[in-house]
Amino acid sequence: MKRVCIVGCGAIGSLYAAHLARVVEVWAFVRREDHARALNRDGLRVSGKHEFHVSLKATTQPGQLPDCDLGIVATKATQVEESIARVGDRFDQGAVISAQNGLGSEEIVAAHTRGQVIRGTTFMSGTKHSDAHVQLELDTATWIGPFEPCHTSPALVKEAADLINAGGLRAEALPDARPAQWSKLIFNASVNGVSALTGLPHSPHFADESQFSALGHLLHELIEEGKGVAAAAGIKLHEDPWEMNKIGAMTNHPPSMLYDVRRELPTEVDFLSGAIAREAERAGVPAPLHTAVYRLIKAREASWTFKDENRAL
Amino acid sequence: MKRVCIVGCGAIGSLYAAHLARVVEVWAFVRREDHARALNRDGLRVSGKHEFHVSLKATTQPGQLPDCDLGIVATKATQVEESIARVGDRFDQGAVISAQNGLGSEEIVAAHTRGQVIRGTTFMSGTKHSDAHVQLELDTATWIGPFEPCHTSPALVKEAADLINAGGLRAEALPDARPAQWSKLIFNASVNGVSALTGLPHSPHFADESQFSALGHLLHELIEEGKGVAAAAGIKLHEDPWEMNKIGAMTNHPPSMLYDVRRELPTEVDFLSGAIAREAERAGVPAPLHTAVYRLIKAREASWTFKDENRAL
Repeated sequence: MKRVCIVGCGAIGSLYAAHLARVVEVWAFVRREDHARALNRDGLRVSGKHEFHVSLKATTQPGQLPDCDLGIVATKATQVEESIARVGDRFDQGAVISAQNGLGSEEIVAAHTRGQVIRGTTFMSGTKHSDAHVQLELDTATWIGPFEPCHTSPALVKEAADLINAGGLRAEALPDARPAQWSKLIFNASVNGVSALTGLPHSPHFADESQFSALGHLLHELIEEGKGVAAAAGIKLHEDPWEMNKIGAMTNHPPSMLYDVRRELPTEVDFLSGAIAREAERAGVPAPLHTAVYRLIKAREASWTFKDENRAL
Repeated sequence: MKRVCIVGCGAIGSLYAAHLARVVEVWAFVRREDHARALNRDGLRVSGKHEFHVSLKATTQPGQLPDCDLGIVATKATQVEESIARVGDRFDQGAVISAQNGLGSEEIVAAHTRGQVIRGTTFMSGTKHSDAHVQLELDTATWIGPFEPCHTSPALVKEAADLINAGGLRAEALPDARPAQWSKLIFNASVNGVSALTGLPHSPHFADESQFSALGHLLHELIEEGKGVAAAAGIKLHEDPWEMNKIGAMTNHPPSMLYDVRRELPTEVDFLSGAIAREAERAGVPAPLHTAVYRLIKAREASWTFKDENRAL
């Protein structure tokens, strides 16, 4: 793998782009013209856990992007369709990792490329300070594995993991990435949904089960319900999402969906609670709580454009 | 019944006070000194469905309030305790109607008076334009009946209803007011909770069942769950809350809990979703959705005082 394209350069995409640019030719495919200009002019500076600077190439124009051996789609789940639809054919001879939260992005990627699709889940975290500067916080592994319907070659998955590791980030090639993806899905759907609806960051309330009214009971029930759906779908979880929640609840970290609702931006709920609700329907098991959270968040999104005479109230 | 005291004069309390002052001596017991002064000086003007002006007496001091034949507690459910604790003994020889939303206010009233307690549920609506001016919108009936644990006399309930009717509002004395109270409880808990969490007024979304993600499904499930709890508690409903919801969803009316969360005021959720959750526990039936809404709203209230470094986000 000699040429890689990172599709979408938020915090996660910028971290992949900078680290991989240390070992291969990297292109960044981004939406904003000034973003591409900044990357071409200034390159990318990484601070935090790692400290270095690299040059790389960036463009907003599919026509300028050469064929690549590997793509990493690192946009929000809500933006996968619009981005991969424009450049999917550049990976026809290679592979594409989908690194989104939740379920459903692999299917979208697969619909727009003839390349092999790799299921990815990352626990890495960072903060983007500017288009040319990203801070690496947690360098936790990215787990990757085949996208089952496309029979992705395990050797190719291994090659992609080796490349990410060579660049200085951590990746693990798995024969089946679904146990990791579902662990994060259940954790993310539960924590993001509740955070967006309550306005609380991932605070100690999320693990508090001291009284009947305490929020921790709801998190526990959402996670148990999610585990039931995973089991019905034949997935054995990689980690217990309740343990992940207990650790996260000590951080006061604002989940991305809280950020989105505060700014009235489209959320990833279709790929999180919505995905659990759909998988439950498919597997014929109940998921009333995730389905309720899904409908509440969809209605919250609708409230931003619904005009009524009492809006000022 | 010759002397009546209205405890709390928001829109509903002001409507009772003004109409009853046309036929008996009326006192208003209120919290704010300037509210009492305005009522003593200007009286109350009613506009809308009825148009008239009356004089009445008002005070913030329990010591100034004479013994009364009837009290109508018309505060928010969250303020019943603090208000009736101060004046409950003024009704020791008479009766007190609790006219709050939800369940649980009668018990609080009964703990603070030796008078007979009347269970009340009102569908009347109005808008308070100032301390001295209230507009009557819907003059729908107030349903009243005995508070069972206290063996309230049906004759006294009838006398109270006659008095309200004589004043020009509508009241109906029932042998059992719980079917009416529970119909409104299930309606109110479902609509208020969903409105507060989504930011939507009672809009057409609440009755929309066109797609899987549509909010009307959640309202339907909340209402069905509430009906199951009512049945387990031995209550036969007076009206179908789903029919009430379908009508209300055409109004775009902002429910009181939406008003509360927009202003970060304590909500009535303990008396609405919380009451259904508690009754379900007592009756040994499940109420996962109302319990979830209850915990989400309690956490939303907690978010107003929870400080974290990412608050500005």
